[in-house]
Amino acid sequence: MRSVDIITTKRQGGVLGREEIDFFVQGVTSGSWPDYQASALLMAIVLRGMTPEETTNLTDAMIRSGSRLDLSDIPGSKVDKHSTGGVGDKSSLVIAPIVAACGAVVPMMSGRGLGHTGGTLDKLESIPGFRTDLSVSEMKASLAAIGCALIGQSAAIAPADRKLYALRDVTGTIESIPLISASIMSKKIAEGTNALVLDVKAGAGAFMKTHHDARALAESLVRIGNAFGVRTQAVITAMDWPIGRAVGNANEVIESIETLKGRGPVDLVEESLDLAERMLMAAGVAGDRPEAKTLALGAITSGRAVEKFRAIIERQKGDPRVIDDYGLLPKAPEEHIVKAPASGFVVLLDAGLIGRASVMLGGGRDTVEDAIDPGVGIIINATVGDPVQRGDTILRLHYRDAARLRAALPLLEQGVKVGPEPPPAKSLIIDEVV
Amino acid sequence: MRSVDIITTKRQGGVLGREEIDFFVQGVTSGSWPDYQASALLMAIVLRGMTPEETTNLTDAMIRSGSRLDLSDIPGSKVDKHSTGGVGDKSSLVIAPIVAACGAVVPMMSGRGLGHTGGTLDKLESIPGFRTDLSVSEMKASLAAIGCALIGQSAAIAPADRKLYALRDVTGTIESIPLISASIMSKKIAEGTNALVLDVKAGAGAFMKTHHDARALAESLVRIGNAFGVRTQAVITAMDWPIGRAVGNANEVIESIETLKGRGPVDLVEESLDLAERMLMAAGVAGDRPEAKTLALGAITSGRAVEKFRAIIERQKGDPRVIDDYGLLPKAPEEHIVKAPASGFVVLLDAGLIGRASVMLGGGRDTVEDAIDPGVGIIINATVGDPVQRGDTILRLHYRDAARLRAALPLLEQGVKVGPEPPPAKSLIIDEVV
Repeated sequence: MRSVDIITTKRQGGVLGREEIDFFVQGVTSGSWPDYQASALLMAIVLRGMTPEETTNLTDAMIRSGSRLDLSDIPGSKVDKHSTGGVGDKSSLVIAPIVAACGAVVPMMSGRGLGHTGGTLDKLESIPGFRTDLSVSEMKASLAAIGCALIGQSAAIAPADRKLYALRDVTGTIESIPLISASIMSKKIAEGTNALVLDVKAGAGAFMKTHHDARALAESLVRIGNAFGVRTQAVITAMDWPIGRAVGNANEVIESIETLKGRGPVDLVEESLDLAERMLMAAGVAGDRPEAKTLALGAITSGRAVEKFRAIIERQKGDPRVIDDYGLLPKAPEEHIVKAPASGFVVLLDAGLIGRASVMLGGGRDTVEDAIDPGVGIIINATVGDPVQRGDTILRLHYRDAARLRAALPLLEQGVKVGPEPPPAKSLIIDEVV
Repeated sequence: MRSVDIITTKRQGGVLGREEIDFFVQGVTSGSWPDYQASALLMAIVLRGMTPEETTNLTDAMIRSGSRLDLSDIPGSKVDKHSTGGVGDKSSLVIAPIVAACGAVVPMMSGRGLGHTGGTLDKLESIPGFRTDLSVSEMKASLAAIGCALIGQSAAIAPADRKLYALRDVTGTIESIPLISASIMSKKIAEGTNALVLDVKAGAGAFMKTHHDARALAESLVRIGNAFGVRTQAVITAMDWPIGRAVGNANEVIESIETLKGRGPVDLVEESLDLAERMLMAAGVAGDRPEAKTLALGAITSGRAVEKFRAIIERQKGDPRVIDDYGLLPKAPEEHIVKAPASGFVVLLDAGLIGRASVMLGGGRDTVEDAIDPGVGIIINATVGDPVQRGDTILRLHYRDAARLRAALPLLEQGVKVGPEPPPAKSLIIDEVV
């Protein structure tokens, strides 16, 4: 088998066999496929696509590049949630404690932010001391003890994905439903969960800009999960403007804790409950939707959810006092106010541009090596649809470096608009694939 | 400017600007663009194409990656010929001496064989002592003294092309009219010729399988040449079966010398004269086609053409006695006969498969590092359309290694066919772009 023949087959729009895909993934993992051949094949896949069978075989080869965890010795049904990435999307921090507080087991492996989207690990690490690099045995011990572990991807899980993702990031080959599907699902299947609820974002701040593309990705993800014996469903949610009122890292942790205390913004609460309810049913903890809703709301109102988050922080060596004292979290010293330029209604808070602005302030990264400033970020005072008077505060920016602020402001000038009429109402939950 | 943005633009089908193309070509030349980004962009170009303006800008950037030779201090009009590559295609060895013998100046830079096609340099180097690695000053001295130099590509000419070609060869990104056009024309324009006649091959043994594709390539090449002030025309010729009766290296040199002596096979003579006549007109040596034909034929019948080849060999340190004594050329010791399996007519001598068989015998190379055996090859005893009796010799294979013979024979079994009816006659010269 020759690499160049495999590349040529795909370039010509042909279908790759299981052995050819294995040869590629094993070659990438071992280094016997040089990067320049891998990137040529990735570009051919982006432009020629893959059949569902090819995508399944790619996922399988990526799973087999590492180990598939066996969590069967931990009692209870394991259920995880994954979001394709958005701006202000901190729902994992809300959902994991709620679902674990209701009795399911949540083995959640998350990623870091890249580009304009934030990452769960970066947010968690703004809590002083919080460790996301648990070993497999530490993770299992946490799951057995408190029903939840919020960790990064172990080196043993899908090593081929790590190599391919790094290569795709620098070769313009991210946007591909087969490649995105195999990347997400190889990790989720290998982590050993029994059920999975996917939050596929659609809109200006998401990788998938349209409902159509988001649905195609959701169908691909669900098909693969079920093919590997993981009960999988997907919800398609809007990502036109940021979710909640905080974009950053420490400020998103605060908003998550507030939500667990029953004081969250309505969109974040709606999205978190929808996903949590689906997880509780998928795990068999709730028999139907009304029961799931009662359980999830009960976990919040009883305080059991926020106490579960405290237990998670404690277990993972973070400072649990942040639950009660937000002053223990990092906060950038300077503040800049973006004001309404006219009276009317906020009609645009472009999630992509606001996400980029947060990266510019230091809250995200452009390359995997970039360091993050957990204390910078953006607070949304008036969100889309809110009435404002000229001069009212729309955004509060927390920053440390004036040069970074100057780089961020033009993006916000473009991304924030006030108009004379309120914009049409839009649903947060757009669609589902079950 | 970021490499990944340039790759993404082309992936999405966008048009690259002059600065972006310069950034790419300069980056490839200097090494600041890593191979994995270059190969991703090459694949995107193969699948998304390039506009004529992009292709011209790519050619220009590749010319500027090295030096453009100035041959204006050598008296006379410089004219070159280039073939896109075929099987048994030794017409450069015939044409260069004819055209130089008629008084034009021929600065011919050629390549080596790769894949199933042969290369002029490999053929010339089967002449004992023959040097193709002349320096620019040696080349100019030869042009001034005898009106011809047959050499390899100097390191100073289009270094970006050498890097890109090597990368394309191993990443399945050869087949692209914009990339092929820029590769050929950057070298030909930089070598300093005033006029250029292109032989674009079409058929089973050519990169372009159809007349349609060959015409598109020819139009692209001619457009670029004229844009850079080189008077350029193209002829499209058939490459369904090998041209002439010899496929290999030393055996093709013998056939070329025989043709210069007036004893060549009819198809090789027809093609060589057609191209030589066009070159004589393009160089201004002949005023019209009949005059060009008289000059070219006169160079053969007078013996001036073969004496010019002797002078070229002598000048480039080869043994000029090969002109009279073919026994001085290498020849593999063993012979195998491929016989007609039935009586009838030869209906197929697939150029691609016969070219591959010659590579298998050791006469070509799969990678640029492979050594070649100049003494092996294939002699075509009965060509397409010839009547044969069962058991007649169709091919004579000269080989050195029985294992290589065994690898070659299945290709010939597939590539040689005898049928009851003669195949329809086909023209060698299919089309022209002038």
